[in-house]
Amino acid sequence: MSRTAIARLHLAVPPTNREGRDCMPPLDTPLRTIELAGQVGFCFGVKRAIHLAEEALESNGTVYISGDLVHNATVTSALEARGLVRTDTLNDKKEGTVIVRAHGLPAGEIRRLRDSGLQVVDATCPIVHHAQQAALTLEQEGYQVVIIGDANHAEIRGIVGTMTTQPLVIDSIEELRAAKASHRLKRKVGVLFQTTHALELCKDIVSELVFMCKDVRIINTICRPVQQRQDAAVDVARRVDLMIIVG
Amino acid sequence: MSRTAIARLHLAVPPTNREGRDCMPPLDTPLRTIELAGQVGFCFGVKRAIHLAEEALESNGTVYISGDLVHNATVTSALEARGLVRTDTLNDKKEGTVIVRAHGLPAGEIRRLRDSGLQVVDATCPIVHHAQQAALTLEQEGYQVVIIGDANHAEIRGIVGTMTTQPLVIDSIEELRAAKASHRLKRKVGVLFQTTHALELCKDIVSELVFMCKDVRIINTICRPVQQRQDAAVDVARRVDLMIIVG
Repeated sequence: MSRTAIARLHLAVPPTNREGRDCMPPLDTPLRTIELAGQVGFCFGVKRAIHLAEEALESNGTVYISGDLVHNATVTSALEARGLVRTDTLNDKKEGTVIVRAHGLPAGEIRRLRDSGLQVVDATCPIVHHAQQAALTLEQEGYQVVIIGDANHAEIRGIVGTMTTQPLVIDSIEELRAAKASHRLKRKVGVLFQTTHALELCKDIVSELVFMCKDVRIINTICRPVQQRQDAAVDVARRVDLMIIVG
Repeated sequence: MSRTAIARLHLAVPPTNREGRDCMPPLDTPLRTIELAGQVGFCFGVKRAIHLAEEALESNGTVYISGDLVHNATVTSALEARGLVRTDTLNDKKEGTVIVRAHGLPAGEIRRLRDSGLQVVDATCPIVHHAQQAALTLEQEGYQVVIIGDANHAEIRGIVGTMTTQPLVIDSIEELRAAKASHRLKRKVGVLFQTTHALELCKDIVSELVFMCKDVRIINTICRPVQQRQDAAVDVARRVDLMIIVG
């Protein structure tokens, strides 16, 4: 769904592009065209997580969460104002409800929370859940799992924590080559991606990886809504003089 | 194994490089260095095929073959002089021996030859045989098989003839894009390569293909001896003034 809006802008200083050229019409032209990217706003996974959190807050006593439900300060502040309690010590809690955030949690950790008497509301994004399942499938079929993404990202920690073996997490061609050189990359490799990772970076790494091994299976876990938003942003950036990303 | 030989060359006209610059020492310098590429000569698959043909010729009556045993006129002529009979009508023969050449034959055709009473000596290169098995494995595991190679090459016809479903044979990025645009490329795809195909061409196609599908398994069937010979040729080409490829 694409929308276009017209508004009056009054800027103190006209913005310039990289070459220092004034890239806006003169300030005395009151009319500016503001174009909204074709794909904007929360994806279905984030909306679902917010909806589950709101439901939990309405019907339950204390509702805990570890980290942010989603990466959006406005949303998380509003939920905290309604009673959501952020905590780094989930394992100490013995009663109440805990929400698993959209990025997911290691499967073992969810089991421990349930076993300790907490009610668990699982708001893991279905696409992240699919990536967790892909990792398990590859592991069970005898592939060395290689995840292309940021090892410190909550989603990746969740995927790694769901597996029984230690996967290789790679975020650059240099890391891939280092893994190959130190014989940490095996012959039969299963690849998946951090769902929100930039496709272009994944492409570069995969192009090199597939010819380093004898048998490579790639399950494409890139999130389509994220990809569409990235594509839409690039598309708009090509046309406009100034781009503002909100979020 | 790298060897270097010294020889005297007498050329009528000194060769020039692309810029037209004389790229040989003056003709009155009698000494030239001839460098042999690090990897040269027949691979083990070709040597094995020649050996099997020689054995068959020694111990059998008429020995038939369809096409060339290997792509080398000197070898095939020598074998024909010793009694090897090239024929395009193998199916008409009722007795004698038939040699399956290094490129392989469709499995059904080999069965038919055996059933018709011929003795079959299978000289299919083990690496080509591995590619045939890879195609069957991918097919049995529910992948749409995509072969990157020349649809008219004997090896590819052999692989295709070994399968029960019709694979997609792709030889360029344009063909890949056309297959995608016409919905002939499915979501779960298994890829293998013509064993003697240029790695660089395969890389370009694979880089694009892996992100067109959801689940891609690549069995790297590129022949290592061929690849090593190609690499060695490129390596020598960078250093020498004139390169002669024999074969």
